[in-house]
Amino acid sequence: MAKLNENFFKLKKNYLFIEIAKRIREYSDSHPQEAKRLIRMGIGDVTRPLAPVVVEAIKKAADEMQYRETFRGYEDSGAGYDFLRKAVSDYYKSFGAEVSADEIRISDGAKSDCGNIIDIFGSGNTVLVTDPAYPVYVDSNVMSGNEVIFADSTEENGFAAMPDKSVRADLIYLCSPNNPTGSVYTTEQLREWVNYALENNAVIIYDAAYEAFITEDNVPRSIYVIEGAKKCAIEICSLSKTAGFTGTRCGYTVIPDELVQKDSAGNDVKLADLWGRRQGSKFNGVSYPIQRGAEAVFTQEGQKQCRENISYYQENARVIAQTCDELGIKYTGGVNSPYIWLKCPNGMGSWDFFDMLLTKIQVVGTPGAGFGKNGDGWFRLTAFGTHEATKEAMERLKDLLKK
Amino acid sequence: MAKLNENFFKLKKNYLFIEIAKRIREYSDSHPQEAKRLIRMGIGDVTRPLAPVVVEAIKKAADEMQYRETFRGYEDSGAGYDFLRKAVSDYYKSFGAEVSADEIRISDGAKSDCGNIIDIFGSGNTVLVTDPAYPVYVDSNVMSGNEVIFADSTEENGFAAMPDKSVRADLIYLCSPNNPTGSVYTTEQLREWVNYALENNAVIIYDAAYEAFITEDNVPRSIYVIEGAKKCAIEICSLSKTAGFTGTRCGYTVIPDELVQKDSAGNDVKLADLWGRRQGSKFNGVSYPIQRGAEAVFTQEGQKQCRENISYYQENARVIAQTCDELGIKYTGGVNSPYIWLKCPNGMGSWDFFDMLLTKIQVVGTPGAGFGKNGDGWFRLTAFGTHEATKEAMERLKDLLKK
Repeated sequence: MAKLNENFFKLKKNYLFIEIAKRIREYSDSHPQEAKRLIRMGIGDVTRPLAPVVVEAIKKAADEMQYRETFRGYEDSGAGYDFLRKAVSDYYKSFGAEVSADEIRISDGAKSDCGNIIDIFGSGNTVLVTDPAYPVYVDSNVMSGNEVIFADSTEENGFAAMPDKSVRADLIYLCSPNNPTGSVYTTEQLREWVNYALENNAVIIYDAAYEAFITEDNVPRSIYVIEGAKKCAIEICSLSKTAGFTGTRCGYTVIPDELVQKDSAGNDVKLADLWGRRQGSKFNGVSYPIQRGAEAVFTQEGQKQCRENISYYQENARVIAQTCDELGIKYTGGVNSPYIWLKCPNGMGSWDFFDMLLTKIQVVGTPGAGFGKNGDGWFRLTAFGTHEATKEAMERLKDLLKK
Repeated sequence: MAKLNENFFKLKKNYLFIEIAKRIREYSDSHPQEAKRLIRMGIGDVTRPLAPVVVEAIKKAADEMQYRETFRGYEDSGAGYDFLRKAVSDYYKSFGAEVSADEIRISDGAKSDCGNIIDIFGSGNTVLVTDPAYPVYVDSNVMSGNEVIFADSTEENGFAAMPDKSVRADLIYLCSPNNPTGSVYTTEQLREWVNYALENNAVIIYDAAYEAFITEDNVPRSIYVIEGAKKCAIEICSLSKTAGFTGTRCGYTVIPDELVQKDSAGNDVKLADLWGRRQGSKFNGVSYPIQRGAEAVFTQEGQKQCRENISYYQENARVIAQTCDELGIKYTGGVNSPYIWLKCPNGMGSWDFFDMLLTKIQVVGTPGAGFGKNGDGWFRLTAFGTHEATKEAMERLKDLLKK
């Protein structure tokens, strides 16, 4: 009889965004008229189309696939084509981080890598996750049967948890700019985490998916600008938010050569070798045309076009933040981040506020409670909509809450 | 201190194809002149370009991504777009298997799904793998710390292992047409495996990646044509060989609704739910343009164009098989399969034969020993080259072995 992975039963029944989709569907079915004016500011999905240079690059590569002379089959390594790894390495240089092409593996996105990275670690690790957090960090560890402990991100610390030296963690998930809270770690704060990791021989899994939204100087776009980080941190990044690749699928993970841990026999093991072996056995690389599209993101013209889209979203973030200011609602994010993490008015719970916005003004956000216990009473709005929809949603919110 | 997954240390140091690539590179570096005439019949990679309808579909979808009105972000479910799941379901119907679109999840390829499927099973399963086999079956289980036992595929049983009723297995990996041996299970043989699985409450993980090469009537193209298979089998398939997607990346996995196992408390659990949760948490779907390309494979014109490529490879298989016949070399495969699995002449070991072909006639094959102990003394040649290269390689082989 096949034995099942019963760790799965410890997961909450519905993945957060599936639960949201279900509630929207139920509301839409029972209120078809109202549903027509639905504005979605829930899931962190982009709405701006792909940059023209990206589309051109995908099409050109697709054309190559039609001719024997230029057709591409399996990638030799599955780690990503050299042209793309080099482009990512150069991108890192542009904001002051030294990451060689060899230290980069291309993937189909940050979610896959965030979920699969746990495969290289053994059982018995104490896994530290900030609360609230992106659900994949916790879920992938629950699925593997790992113990997860939490560092509290709260209103008091600006939803940016800092290390507690009395706690010993072996693996640490950090995300900056943070999903869902929009908070960021400054250089000084990140240095504190790196030092904590080095002291504990812990490994930081650093999710930098939102780095392109950083505007302030003292906020690092990569953990590798911090001294010592290459000895303790894995960085996972994605083109989903940088270049609107949520439906196009491409990301990358950096494991520096210097990132070495001891095995139980006391031998040094390069984590990059374990990850290479994991990916080499269970992944066959990213589609060639998509890798060419990703390469185009990092060209001068690609950066210009992608930055325009990011500026577009940043304007939305400004509008949402301003509305919160006008309504006297507390929030984090909005600067350095496409997320506004706001305190539900009148002490409402997250899901109650979700239902209220859905049914009263047909605006969909994400209940903070879905990201952890410290998220209850908080709510995430995203800046990924159109200007028109964002403004309209904020007008409706003002009408609703001024009543 | 982060504890590592030390199961990784039990893996052989180099993944088979990485070792082959290394030997080729070393030979090429020391023999640059000879290396120019290298013919690669080792890795199972296609050489025919993508079908024109596939390229057109990818380009059209890429164009859609450039405009706000037609842009696509995250897929709601990550299970694959309805249009593609429906197309796959219809494809199944065309060879007599009833698989609904809901039972299909689209992925980036069979390798990922073969590797990741093990996540839904617990520890303590006895995993049965035929020997020789595709390395991912064993490696993904070794990485998870599972015990693997083997069913011997040998010259005597035509390299198509059958169930041993005295052995109790919980998970069973089958691959037909087989990689690496080119052998196939007939309807009667597959029925025996399905009955064995049903009697043991075991789950079959059925790799059908080469189904498009089947030409004979009594060889099923899906395990689901066997009665009872939907109660015990997961089927994993890929467009890599069907449509030359090795560098384009798209596949699918079927878990029927009827496939239910008991958990330790005696409750029924649908395996499709576990897989959905695994993929929902650790995967974000396949690139939209690539899914449109995959859809085109299943159109009438797409099938016509893809079948032409398969016929092309089948002609190569015929030439290789004929050469073996002329040389009095025993083999399996070549019919229903792009692989010819041949007995190394004069009692040579696989890697010795590999080195001989590489250094004497600059032909690269795959040593059977890389696929398991029963593979030693055997060798895999693939029919995925050009007609010219295949013929040339066979001429060189005849010259070499007739000496």
